[in-house]
Amino acid sequence: MKIVCSKTNLLNAVNIVSKAVSTKTTMPILECMLLDASANKIKLMANNMELGIETIVLGEIEQKGIIALNAKIFAEIIRKLPDSDVVIESKEDFVINITCEKAKFSISGKQGDDFPKLPYIEKSQYICLSQFTLKELIQKTIFSISDNDSNKLLTGELFEINETALKVVSLDGHRISIRNTILKESYETIKVVVPGKTLSEVSKILTGNLEDEVHIYFTTNHILFEFYHTIVISRLIEGEYFKVNQMLSTDYETKVKINKKEMLNCIDRATLLVKEGEKKPIILNITDNEMELKINSSVGSMNERINIQKEGKDIMIGFNPKFLIDSLRAIDEEEITLYLVNAKAPCIIRDKEENYIYLILPVNFNANAAV
Amino acid sequence: MKIVCSKTNLLNAVNIVSKAVSTKTTMPILECMLLDASANKIKLMANNMELGIETIVLGEIEQKGIIALNAKIFAEIIRKLPDSDVVIESKEDFVINITCEKAKFSISGKQGDDFPKLPYIEKSQYICLSQFTLKELIQKTIFSISDNDSNKLLTGELFEINETALKVVSLDGHRISIRNTILKESYETIKVVVPGKTLSEVSKILTGNLEDEVHIYFTTNHILFEFYHTIVISRLIEGEYFKVNQMLSTDYETKVKINKKEMLNCIDRATLLVKEGEKKPIILNITDNEMELKINSSVGSMNERINIQKEGKDIMIGFNPKFLIDSLRAIDEEEITLYLVNAKAPCIIRDKEENYIYLILPVNFNANAAV
Repeated sequence: MKIVCSKTNLLNAVNIVSKAVSTKTTMPILECMLLDASANKIKLMANNMELGIETIVLGEIEQKGIIALNAKIFAEIIRKLPDSDVVIESKEDFVINITCEKAKFSISGKQGDDFPKLPYIEKSQYICLSQFTLKELIQKTIFSISDNDSNKLLTGELFEINETALKVVSLDGHRISIRNTILKESYETIKVVVPGKTLSEVSKILTGNLEDEVHIYFTTNHILFEFYHTIVISRLIEGEYFKVNQMLSTDYETKVKINKKEMLNCIDRATLLVKEGEKKPIILNITDNEMELKINSSVGSMNERINIQKEGKDIMIGFNPKFLIDSLRAIDEEEITLYLVNAKAPCIIRDKEENYIYLILPVNFNANAAV
Repeated sequence: MKIVCSKTNLLNAVNIVSKAVSTKTTMPILECMLLDASANKIKLMANNMELGIETIVLGEIEQKGIIALNAKIFAEIIRKLPDSDVVIESKEDFVINITCEKAKFSISGKQGDDFPKLPYIEKSQYICLSQFTLKELIQKTIFSISDNDSNKLLTGELFEINETALKVVSLDGHRISIRNTILKESYETIKVVVPGKTLSEVSKILTGNLEDEVHIYFTTNHILFEFYHTIVISRLIEGEYFKVNQMLSTDYETKVKINKKEMLNCIDRATLLVKEGEKKPIILNITDNEMELKINSSVGSMNERINIQKEGKDIMIGFNPKFLIDSLRAIDEEEITLYLVNAKAPCIIRDKEENYIYLILPVNFNANAAV
């Protein structure tokens, strides 16, 4: 094999594909990237058996061939090469020469045929949306997946398509994050649970441009993201996702309008007093025109008052401050609305159009200590 | 005690003083900062018994007093306050209230009198130089101190003043770094060894401006840096420093002029192939008009050729690549000159005026394997 391509093209491909390389594996071949110039295009590929990424590197094939290279070393070498044309040539015994200007590296590769192939995906069921929208949907829900493997479904996100409506849901037992968006076209009904790890890597690769499109294809067991020269294939998580709609009540006793930034900054300051591992609720004391936020910990106490607009009853309710922070950070609006029932019932933060719905369960607190 | 000052002034002071706070100590009081408003100025101070820093916070004293505060918590609170006036007030039982706009924190402090005082320094012997120069001198020599406490002297840097000449030296047994500079005035002869940790912290506090001055005072056991509203006091390291001049020979067999950036980039690339903990020399093969740099490791091999101007004999010599990289990074000049004797003798990189001298010992290598 002998190929020539620019350092920039190659580095870009390496950075994309790196995201599917196994870091912990007993199969050394999975620590590799596959450089495939066996047909008429140069393809770079990685596959950790859960997630596979393939991208095309623009360049010239001088001699066809296929070789697997240690991903970490290959990536580091490409990163440090001068900004010029790179020649990659495989010699006998899988020795690879990488030459760029006057620099010449020799490293040993592995037989390309040993590398696990990506599964075949039938491209029938699909949706199309902008990279910007997909990136937003992921980033604004991904924080509330669970990292506990004991319930696989909680480690993924629901993607539910119904005609032109796309709903993305994540939940971890303490909170639910929902984002709704409208697609340009109408599609068949689809309901799949995508691994959080896959979505997190996809969101890093997406450009986030409104003009760039991404096609998402679905099969029974797999999802395929296709954009520009890259495809990302991932297994889906099996099982029936939670019936989220049953958990969302539209009744409320208290409705609060508050400046998002003020509330976020205040909670952010309050968490200073909470040491890592310590569980201390932030207590919201909502009265007419004012929300008092209080925290008490072994380090000290803090309180702050924020002006609000309130409808309905007064209420005092405690939350894990991290959960409030995560949700508030995911909202772009300056003014937000909180819907509350009582100190034992979840708080819902949502906009009128329900583009976003964040549900957070409250925590118990000692009302006497909080005063 | 009650004081009022702007968040900006206070944060600036906290950031400076933080550098002298103990992180590992059995004395809880050393994890504190001392806020001293007992006289007519607000002073913030920290002291880890090796290094003490005191700085003045501009602000108003409404009620005199002195209190010690946990440095980490205090710094985090100040950092997250809104950009406004901060009121710090001590109550009964050393409870401290910190108020800024609508945010109000309460944390517990400690009795200020328990805090260890900074030693008294007689300001007789001193030098004056620009903050820029001092920062440069430190940053361009500090990398070759030793972090091994078995020989204390190696963990410090020699500051030697002789009339208008200031020489700063560090060495770790494998290499020597020397920077010479000319002071504006002539001073008495001084020769002290300053702890590397002190210099590293001082260099972070220095603005690096050419117009800002720093005064350095010396006593038998201490050094005091004074700039603007801040003083840094440190113990000196006892003992007689190494006679460095005896180690620097001016004889050479080979003199090489080379582009610094090309050489640095090449060695930087080569070190990719060296795994952490692995000791692999980079071999320089110097012939007429060309330096070939080669490295061989368990990962692979690399070689690259760089154009040079050479006087004298051909030579093949091996070095720890990290030592070459450190020295080359500390040199600003585009073109540098290497002086070599033979494969067992040190390489010296220096400019004509000897503003800088970097000496690096070579390492043995298997000449056959290198070819």
